Amino acid sequence: MVAIHLENPPKKDVNLNWEEPTSTFSLREIESKSLKEGELRVKLNYLSNDPTQRTWMAANQKESRQYIAPILKGDIIRSIGLGEVLESRSDKYAKGDVVVGLMGWASEIIVSEAAISAKVDKSLAPELYLSSLGMTGLTAYFGLKNVGQIKEGQTVLISAASGATGSMAVQLAKHLFKASKVIGIAGSAEKVEWVKSLGADYCANYREPDYLKKLDEYIGEDYVDIYFDNVGGEQLDFGLTHVKRYGRIVACGAIAGYNDNSKLIVKAWPEIIMNRLNVQGFIVFDFANEFPQAIGELSAAVKNGLVKASEGATVIDIHGDWKAVPKTWFKLFTDEKPKGKLVTKL
Amino acid sequence: MVAIHLENPPKKDVNLNWEEPTSTFSLREIESKSLKEGELRVKLNYLSNDPTQRTWMAANQKESRQYIAPILKGDIIRSIGLGEVLESRSDKYAKGDVVVGLMGWASEIIVSEAAISAKVDKSLAPELYLSSLGMTGLTAYFGLKNVGQIKEGQTVLISAASGATGSMAVQLAKHLFKASKVIGIAGSAEKVEWVKSLGADYCANYREPDYLKKLDEYIGEDYVDIYFDNVGGEQLDFGLTHVKRYGRIVACGAIAGYNDNSKLIVKAWPEIIMNRLNVQGFIVFDFANEFPQAIGELSAAVKNGLVKASEGATVIDIHGDWKAVPKTWFKLFTDEKPKGKLVTKL
Repeated sequence: MVAIHLENPPKKDVNLNWEEPTSTFSLREIESKSLKEGELRVKLNYLSNDPTQRTWMAANQKESRQYIAPILKGDIIRSIGLGEVLESRSDKYAKGDVVVGLMGWASEIIVSEAAISAKVDKSLAPELYLSSLGMTGLTAYFGLKNVGQIKEGQTVLISAASGATGSMAVQLAKHLFKASKVIGIAGSAEKVEWVKSLGADYCANYREPDYLKKLDEYIGEDYVDIYFDNVGGEQLDFGLTHVKRYGRIVACGAIAGYNDNSKLIVKAWPEIIMNRLNVQGFIVFDFANEFPQAIGELSAAVKNGLVKASEGATVIDIHGDWKAVPKTWFKLFTDEKPKGKLVTKL
Repeated sequence: MVAIHLENPPKKDVNLNWEEPTSTFSLREIESKSLKEGELRVKLNYLSNDPTQRTWMAANQKESRQYIAPILKGDIIRSIGLGEVLESRSDKYAKGDVVVGLMGWASEIIVSEAAISAKVDKSLAPELYLSSLGMTGLTAYFGLKNVGQIKEGQTVLISAASGATGSMAVQLAKHLFKASKVIGIAGSAEKVEWVKSLGADYCANYREPDYLKKLDEYIGEDYVDIYFDNVGGEQLDFGLTHVKRYGRIVACGAIAGYNDNSKLIVKAWPEIIMNRLNVQGFIVFDFANEFPQAIGELSAAVKNGLVKASEGATVIDIHGDWKAVPKTWFKLFTDEKPKGKLVTKL
């Protein structure tokens, strides 16, 4: 049994080189412990890769201001995962069940039953529970419905539109919530085409120097009702200046700045005042008591083809090479970031 | 009859030197016109000085994104004013009435009856209608009540707390809405003492290098429920990091940046996500249909001593020197800014 631990909480840069003493991560053998009442031993098969894990390991934040306890030096890296129950002292889950929940970068892990969010229907592809029906699908759903208060016929701008959350937001906005116009922002010509294939009316490539001008044309004279922000920085400034008066900003993510805070600078704040914008930050767990209803609605959307779930995840099989676990996760912050959800198969 | 016109819409700096061709303003004689149905001729006695006038004359904004039509080259500078009706073709106001409303920097002006917000009770000090019972008093009232959704026992941080809006917000938060703790930010030792005399439990002087540390101590472990932001920039960043989880930011003003956009940069945006903050921009005119009720409540607060209205305005008498009108207004953006509301007596 092995697990990846946090060796040096990154102040700024993540060091993926295991051989160096400044490495962010270390791989260690872990000893087996016996289970307490309500606990499960899970053999992990899949790991979810999420940008927010970067914030969990941040060394420079007040603990009280994080939305979840930080990962401390020596802790196993926390991760949403999917695996098989090897042993159970819970009444809710039995040996042999496949479950999804908050686990870690480990071959086996002991978790409380409270950390499990769902028992997996084995007839569905497991990665679905880490993408469309998982946290990122739910984030897109609650971001649009509860935070953005989206109404049929509205217009929506979505950044990181080829990402795990963004690609679900595009599909849900267009096909489930019946937006009249959905405009995406993505990071390559291929991703732009993919986002359009999911239902976006327009999509711009932020690596092209004139992408803001293009977005301005796509939006036209009427501005948009909602900006679903996964990025921050320059794209957020564009969103703030292109949301209608009394419009809404869904403050979902800030991936522009996870490795470089200077990219998170916002210059267009006065637009919030001038145009009476509403900005609401949220974390998907705020809506935990609505998860069952939402998963039901999302499952139906997958089954009736409104959501192209099969295209929504890229699964990388590391064939037991544990060093590939942090390296795969780190693709989220580089040009190697694939379309949709990035899932690691152990 | 004279009026001050916009000669060169300022891209960045306001040039107050009338002798230079790049002067922002020009004083011109104006010809008398006859009134149309529903119009009034008003002889102006008092002018309200408001930072937002700076945004009305901005040359570099899309017209559609301003909350009010911009002042264009050649227009009379728009200003809230108070004066006597000389002639009326309105059924609502008669010759001899004293009225307050959206007027301009002029000795006499013709306005539509729709521009008048109130008929003045001559038994009250006229400057009261430009301060506690005027737009700035109403801005503080609606900012706390409707936007901040303040509840008894909550804690509030208020920037520009010695300003026209801020000084009313301090008093209303503490005495009308019964906040348990009100913390102000002001710009001199004298202003700090004045803000405390109005009801703030604590107030810090932002010209002291350690003022953020002091504010942090005043706030303590529990953070604040509401940050009422009149300033933007560094103070806003502090506010974003010191509002409780699920707390509210009342986005009222951004005086830090009216002359220097670089001072409006916001770095702490991710706090909005992490701590699920709600930011709501507003303009007092959004609540125009509630003005009569609010003015009634504010008048009562003045009469029963909850609001120290007599100290709430600094009146500068220019004795007919029209060049002093823009110079007086410009004090809002300099160290000469007085406590409370700055009113010009013509």
